[in-house]
Amino acid sequence: MRYAPSDSPVLTLTTGPVDAYPAVLRGLASPVLYDYDPLFLATYQRVCEKLAPLVKSQTVPVLLHGEPVLALEAAAASLIGRDDVVLNLVSGVYAKGFEGRAGRSSAEIVELAVPYDQVIDPAAVAEALAARPDVTVVAACHHDTPSGTINPIAEIGAVVARHGALFLVDTVSSFGGMAIDAESAHADLFVTGPNKCLGCPPGLSILGVSERAWAKMEANPSAPRASILSILDWRDAWRADRPFPFTPSVAEVNGLEAAIDLYVTEGPEKVWARHALTARACRAGILAMGLALWPADVAFASPTTTAVRTPEGIDEAALRGEVRARYGVVLSSGRGATAGRLTRIGHMGPTAQPIHAVVAVAAFGGALTALGHRVDVGAGVAAALAVIDADRDGD
Amino acid sequence: MRYAPSDSPVLTLTTGPVDAYPAVLRGLASPVLYDYDPLFLATYQRVCEKLAPLVKSQTVPVLLHGEPVLALEAAAASLIGRDDVVLNLVSGVYAKGFEGRAGRSSAEIVELAVPYDQVIDPAAVAEALAARPDVTVVAACHHDTPSGTINPIAEIGAVVARHGALFLVDTVSSFGGMAIDAESAHADLFVTGPNKCLGCPPGLSILGVSERAWAKMEANPSAPRASILSILDWRDAWRADRPFPFTPSVAEVNGLEAAIDLYVTEGPEKVWARHALTARACRAGILAMGLALWPADVAFASPTTTAVRTPEGIDEAALRGEVRARYGVVLSSGRGATAGRLTRIGHMGPTAQPIHAVVAVAAFGGALTALGHRVDVGAGVAAALAVIDADRDGD
Amino acid sequence: MRYAPSDSPVLTLTTGPVDAYPAVLRGLASPVLYDYDPLFLATYQRVCEKLAPLVKSQTVPVLLHGEPVLALEAAAASLIGRDDVVLNLVSGVYAKGFEGRAGRSSAEIVELAVPYDQVIDPAAVAEALAARPDVTVVAACHHDTPSGTINPIAEIGAVVARHGALFLVDTVSSFGGMAIDAESAHADLFVTGPNKCLGCPPGLSILGVSERAWAKMEANPSAPRASILSILDWRDAWRADRPFPFTPSVAEVNGLEAAIDLYVTEGPEKVWARHALTARACRAGILAMGLALWPADVAFASPTTTAVRTPEGIDEAALRGEVRARYGVVLSSGRGATAGRLTRIGHMGPTAQPIHAVVAVAAFGGALTALGHRVDVGAGVAAALAVIDADRDGD
Amino acid sequence: MRYAPSDSPVLTLTTGPVDAYPAVLRGLASPVLYDYDPLFLATYQRVCEKLAPLVKSQTVPVLLHGEPVLALEAAAASLIGRDDVVLNLVSGVYAKGFEGRAGRSSAEIVELAVPYDQVIDPAAVAEALAARPDVTVVAACHHDTPSGTINPIAEIGAVVARHGALFLVDTVSSFGGMAIDAESAHADLFVTGPNKCLGCPPGLSILGVSERAWAKMEANPSAPRASILSILDWRDAWRADRPFPFTPSVAEVNGLEAAIDLYVTEGPEKVWARHALTARACRAGILAMGLALWPADVAFASPTTTAVRTPEGIDEAALRGEVRARYGVVLSSGRGATAGRLTRIGHMGPTAQPIHAVVAVAAFGGALTALGHRVDVGAGVAAALAVIDADRDGD
Repeated sequence: MRYAPSDSPVLTLTTGPVDAYPAVLRGLASPVLYDYDPLFLATYQRVCEKLAPLVKSQTVPVLLHGEPVLALEAAAASLIGRDDVVLNLVSGVYAKGFEGRAGRSSAEIVELAVPYDQVIDPAAVAEALAARPDVTVVAACHHDTPSGTINPIAEIGAVVARHGALFLVDTVSSFGGMAIDAESAHADLFVTGPNKCLGCPPGLSILGVSERAWAKMEANPSAPRASILSILDWRDAWRADRPFPFTPSVAEVNGLEAAIDLYVTEGPEKVWARHALTARACRAGILAMGLALWPADVAFASPTTTAVRTPEGIDEAALRGEVRARYGVVLSSGRGATAGRLTRIGHMGPTAQPIHAVVAVAAFGGALTALGHRVDVGAGVAAALAVIDADRDGD
Repeated sequence: MRYAPSDSPVLTLTTGPVDAYPAVLRGLASPVLYDYDPLFLATYQRVCEKLAPLVKSQTVPVLLHGEPVLALEAAAASLIGRDDVVLNLVSGVYAKGFEGRAGRSSAEIVELAVPYDQVIDPAAVAEALAARPDVTVVAACHHDTPSGTINPIAEIGAVVARHGALFLVDTVSSFGGMAIDAESAHADLFVTGPNKCLGCPPGLSILGVSERAWAKMEANPSAPRASILSILDWRDAWRADRPFPFTPSVAEVNGLEAAIDLYVTEGPEKVWARHALTARACRAGILAMGLALWPADVAFASPTTTAVRTPEGIDEAALRGEVRARYGVVLSSGRGATAGRLTRIGHMGPTAQPIHAVVAVAAFGGALTALGHRVDVGAGVAAALAVIDADRDGD
Repeated sequence: MRYAPSDSPVLTLTTGPVDAYPAVLRGLASPVLYDYDPLFLATYQRVCEKLAPLVKSQTVPVLLHGEPVLALEAAAASLIGRDDVVLNLVSGVYAKGFEGRAGRSSAEIVELAVPYDQVIDPAAVAEALAARPDVTVVAACHHDTPSGTINPIAEIGAVVARHGALFLVDTVSSFGGMAIDAESAHADLFVTGPNKCLGCPPGLSILGVSERAWAKMEANPSAPRASILSILDWRDAWRADRPFPFTPSVAEVNGLEAAIDLYVTEGPEKVWARHALTARACRAGILAMGLALWPADVAFASPTTTAVRTPEGIDEAALRGEVRARYGVVLSSGRGATAGRLTRIGHMGPTAQPIHAVVAVAAFGGALTALGHRVDVGAGVAAALAVIDADRDGD
Repeated sequence: MRYAPSDSPVLTLTTGPVDAYPAVLRGLASPVLYDYDPLFLATYQRVCEKLAPLVKSQTVPVLLHGEPVLALEAAAASLIGRDDVVLNLVSGVYAKGFEGRAGRSSAEIVELAVPYDQVIDPAAVAEALAARPDVTVVAACHHDTPSGTINPIAEIGAVVARHGALFLVDTVSSFGGMAIDAESAHADLFVTGPNKCLGCPPGLSILGVSERAWAKMEANPSAPRASILSILDWRDAWRADRPFPFTPSVAEVNGLEAAIDLYVTEGPEKVWARHALTARACRAGILAMGLALWPADVAFASPTTTAVRTPEGIDEAALRGEVRARYGVVLSSGRGATAGRLTRIGHMGPTAQPIHAVVAVAAFGGALTALGHRVDVGAGVAAALAVIDADRDGD
C-alpha cells in the first residue's frame, strides 16, 4: 500500500503549517461578521486582552493580518531607522534572513554568528555590545526552526537590557510550546504568531510591544504608516472604540480565540510539558536508532522541533517522500543552509503528543531502512516509549 | 504526564463510535434544510442511489433513522412472523443478542452455536438446515465485533439460498471495511450502518432488501407499520416524490453523503486494502509481543477489529485506562461474554491506517508493561512495521 | 430570476426541520468520541444535567436517540399498559395520531376532540374525567403543529393532576420557544426534542419523567426493554458511571450541548420573547393583508408557528412553490387533515427573529398576488413592522 | 425587543466583510495541511487554475496572502517606478486613497477627479491622456465602494489601451458580482479579492497580471522582492513544483476553492443576475420611500452596493444602530468623505438575494421612521417586491 500524493496524509508532524486543533477549525467556520459590528469589535478586543497575560508585553498585544513573515518585515521597518546600528544574532537560517529585512532601514548591521547547529552565547553578546556601544537594536530568533535549536533568550535579553538597546525577538515557533514571553525575554518587540504551537492555520501575527518600542517606532520617520507594514496603525485597533486601519482577517481572529481558550483551559504549563515530553521521547527514539540530532548539543534542542541529521548517502527529500508514501506521515525539510541536511519532526500544538513521537520514530526509521540505511526501529520506539513512561511513572 | 479523563484523547482506535472523517464532520455541519425542500429530497434520493452499487441489494437501499440497533430490531420485527422458524447462527455476543429480537416474533428459534473465538462452518449450517427443513429465516452476524471474528458469510449464504430460507445478515461493522455486499452474501436483509467503516457518527442504519424480503415483510401481518420499527414505511421514501414516514435525520444524511463520496473517490478496493493491512500489521505486532489474539485461528480475524486476549492477571479495564492515561489512545473493551477477556483495537474508516497499528501496538505493549506484564514493545512495533513495509515493497 | 429546486434556498421558515444555529452546526462537527470515553461520558451527563432546570421534570431528563416520533412511540408503549384507559385530547393531527400509538397497548381510548382550529377546554377535560373515573392516563399535545395552536396545558395538567391520572404531554414544537416545562404542565411524561425551538437538527428526543411515571413504567409488564422503544433502559444512562443500552448519537449530543448553551446564555425569557414577537408581527402582517389565520381565535395561535388559512381557489402547494421559486423562502405545508388548507410559517430557534416576519409576510403576499389572489403586501409588511417597533418602543 | 451589541445579528447586509457562504465556512474548517504536502501543492495550483477563466488575465492569477489592501499596496509598489507618471482616476474615496500608495514610487501623479457621486467619463480620460502623453500607468477603481458607484471600466480600459499605458484596476468589490474581468477591462494589473462577491472571509487577494505588467514589474528596480509586498516573488508559486515565498494562508485557500466551486456551479451569469436584481429591488424600495440614492444617476449605481443618501437631520451612525437594535440587521457606513452622508446596503455573494432587498428596505425605513423621519415602508417593500416579481414574470 502506498499513500499517493493525492491521498490525504494520516498525520502532519511538521514545523508549520501544523494541523489545527479541531476547535480552532470550528472557530474558523463561525459566521463572518462585519468588522465594525459591535459583536466583532468586542471579540477583537477580547482576543487581544486574552493574549496579554500570555504574551506579557508591556502593552496590549497587536495583531497583524498576515502570517508572521509580515510581522517580521513590519517589525524591521517600524523599529529600525536610518540611524540605527543593529546587532543581529545569527544561529540559523531565519535569523540570517532577518538581515535582509533589517538592512533596508538601518545604518549598519553587525552580525554575531555561530554555526547553525550551535546557539548564541549570552557572553558573546555582551562582548559584541561592549565592542559596539553604538548598537541600538539587537535582533534574535528564539527558536531558529530550520535548525531546531533554542537560543538562551532570557539571558541574552538581560544582556541587551543592560546595554540599553532595544531587543527584537522572533518567537514564532516557540511561543505557546514552551515558557517564553516578552517579559522573561526582556523583549521590546516580541514577534510571534498563532500558527505554530497555538495550533492555528497561518494567516495572523502577534506582536508584543514595550513602551520604549512604541516610542521608538513613533519617533522613527521611516516607520510605515498607511501600509500593510505599519505596526503603528494598529496600535489602538484592539480597542472596540477605535477603527481598524483596514479589514482584519475575521475568520482567523475567530480561530485564534478558540486557540487561546484551549491553551488557557489546558494550562500553559501543561501544554509546555506536553511539548517537552514529546520532544524528549522523539530525541530518545532517534538516538536509539543510532541517528544524530542536528543540534550539536542536546541542550540546544527545541521542545517544539526535533531536527535529525540526514545520514550520509540518504537523499533527504526521498526520505520524507518515503515516510509519507509508506505511512501517511508528513515531516518537514530543512530550509536554506539546512535543506537536504536534516529532517524536522514538529511537535507543535495538536501534534505535540508523546505518542506521536512513537509514530515519528517508527516512520522515520522504517523509511530509512527502506532506503537502505538499516536502523533498529524497535529499539527506537522502545526508547521513545521509555521516556514517556518514565515521565508518567514519576508523576 | 497523564491524559486526564477530561483531556481530549489523541487517537480513538475503537470499534465504534469511531472518529469520523473530517469531510464527514463538515458534511454534518451543512445547513439543515426542510426535509420536503426539493433540494433535500433530491439529496436523499441521491444518497440512497449512491449506496445502491455499494450495498448491491436487489432494491434501492433503505435508510433508517437511528443507529443500527434500530435496524436490527426493525429487521427482526418486520421479517420474522409468528409462523417462522429462525436458525440463528451464533459465534459471538451480537449474534446471540439477536435471539432476543427474533424471539419476540418467531414461532421458534433454532440455534447453531460455536465458541465465541470460532466462526460458523457452512457445512454445519447445511446440516442444521437439513435437520430442520422448516427453517424459514436464517440470521447471521458477519463480523461479530465483540469477538473480532469474521464468519464465511458468502459460503453460508449460498447454503441458505440452496435451502430457500430468507437470509438476514448483520454487517454493521464489516461493511465498507472489506469486500462484503448483499449480493455476495446472498442476503435478503442486509443490515448495516455508516457509523463504522464508512466513518460516520452513530445515528443511521442502512438496509439492503431483496425482492423476496419485501414480499415477506408485506405479507407479514406483524410487521410494524406507523412505527419507528417499520421498514415497510420507508420502502419508497428514497424517491424524491414520496413522503417520509417521519422526519429523517437531515444532518446525518448530509454526513453520510460525504462519507460515500470519500469511499467511492478513494475506491472500495483501496479502502479495504487499507483496513486489511492495518489489521495484519496490528496482529503481527501483538503476536510479536507474545500476546494472543482472541480468534482461535488467525484466519478468523477481522480486518476491521483486532481482538487481543487479556493476559492472565491483567485487569482489562485498567489496561485500557492505562493506554488512555499514558498515551491518549482509546481502545474498546469486550462486550458481554467477552468483556474483561479481551481488548479490541478498531481499524475502521479513518482509523484504518497502517501507522495506527504501530500506535496501537506501542500503546498496548507499553501499558501492559506498566501493569507488570512485561512485553517487548520494540519487537512488536518492528513486526508491525515489517508487515507494512512488506506490503509496500510488493506493490 | 427563479430559485430552481436544485438551488439552495435563502431562508427556511418552516416548522421543522428548522435551520440549526451556526454554533449547533459547529457542535455537530466536533470530533466523534468513543461513547465510553470518560470525556464523552462526562459530556453526556453534563448535557442531561443542563437540561434538568429547563425541562423541570422530577428526575434528570432522558435522551432517546431518534427524533421525537421515537419518544412518542416509546412513551405510549412504556407508560400505557393493557389495563389503562387513556383519555386522548385531540385538537389536531398530531394528537389524533397519538391514538394509533396508544391503541397498541391500552385497554381503551376515550377521545375528547375539538375541531382542529380550536383548543381543548380544561373544563371539558374535567367533565370527561368525571364521566370516566377509570381513566388512568391523559395524553395531550401542547402545540399541535399542523394547526399552529396551543392548548392551555397548565390548566389541563392541573385538572388531570386533581383526577390522579398520569399526564403525557407532547411539547416537541413548543419547548424552548415559550414558557413550558414539565412542572408547570403537571406532566408525568414530558416528551420533547431539540429539533425545533432549540435549533438542532432532527435526531434526538428529550423526555422529562416524574417519579410516578417511572414507577408506572417499571410496573408495566409490556413496557419495552432491550428495545429501541425502551425508556426504562435509558433511565440511568445519563450517569457517567452507567452503561448505555446502545450507542448514543454522539454528534447529535454534541450539537445539543451547543444548543443548550446558546439557550441559557441568551436566557429563556429572552428567547421566548423573540419567538412571541416574531409570531405577533407575522400574524399582524398576515391579517393586514386580509388573510385569515387558521386558529379560530388569535388567542389560540402558537408563538412558534403561524398557520395561515389558504384562500379559496389557491393551490397550497403551488403557493409554497411560488414562495420558494421567487424569493428562496421555504414554508411548511399542513399535515393530514390540514394539508392543502393552510400554510405554516415557522418561528423556531434561529428563525424566530422578528425581521423574518417581514420576510414571510412579503414572500407570502407576493406569491399569493402572483397566483392571482392580490393582497396589499405593503400594508402587510407595515403592520408587521409596526408590531416590532411597538415592542421596541415600549422597551 | 432589542438586539444588544452582544447579541448575534440576524443578517449582515454590509459591503464587507460579508457573511461567507456556508460551504466556504466548511472549506475553512478543512484539515490544515503542510504547505509543501503534495496534496496542498496540488490544491493551490488547482485553485489558481480555476481562477484563470474567471479572472481572464493573460497569465495564471496570483494569490497574495492578505486582504486586498495588501494587493493594492503591492500593485502600486511593484508596477510603478520612479520614472512613471500615473494618471489616477478619482471618483471616490478608494480611488483617492490609491494616490498615497502610488505616490510612494512614482515620478508624478496626475489626477482626473469627479465628485464622488459621479463616475469617470472615458472621454475625459482620453483628453487627460492626450494632455499628458507621458502617462505610463493609469489607475482606476471599478467599484468605488464608499460611493456605491461603478465606473465604465471597459470603455476606460479601451482608451488606456489605445494610449499604451498600463492599466491598474481595483475590482475588489465588483468581481464575482457582475460581468467584469481582466480581459474586458483591458487591465494589466487586475486587483481583486474573494472577500466580497465570492463570499469568502477577508484574508486573501487575487491578482490578474498581463504579460506587459509582468515585464514592467520585472524591469522595475524598486519592485519589492523578499517582501510581503512582492508580487514578483509569487509569480510562479501557483505551480505545484515551485516554492512558496512564504507560508500561504492554507485555510483561506481551502475556503476560496469552495467559493470558486459554488460560483462556477451556480454559473457566473446567474450569480450576476442575482446581484443585479437584488440591487434593483433595493433601489426601487429606497426610492419608493422618498429617499435618495447617493449616485447622482441611477445608471452609476452598483449591483453589489446600494448607497443611500442620509436624509437631512438624521445621524447616520444612529440610523445604523437603530437598524441593528430593532431588526438585527447590519449595514455599512460610508468611508472618509462619504462617512456620515450615506448608508450602504451590500449585495455581495450570499447576501445578494432579492428577498434581502425587502429586509433592507423594511429595516432601513423602519429605523428612519423611528428616528423621526417618517417614510412609507409599505410602499418601499411593495416597490422592491414588484421589481423581483417583474423579473420573475418575465422569465
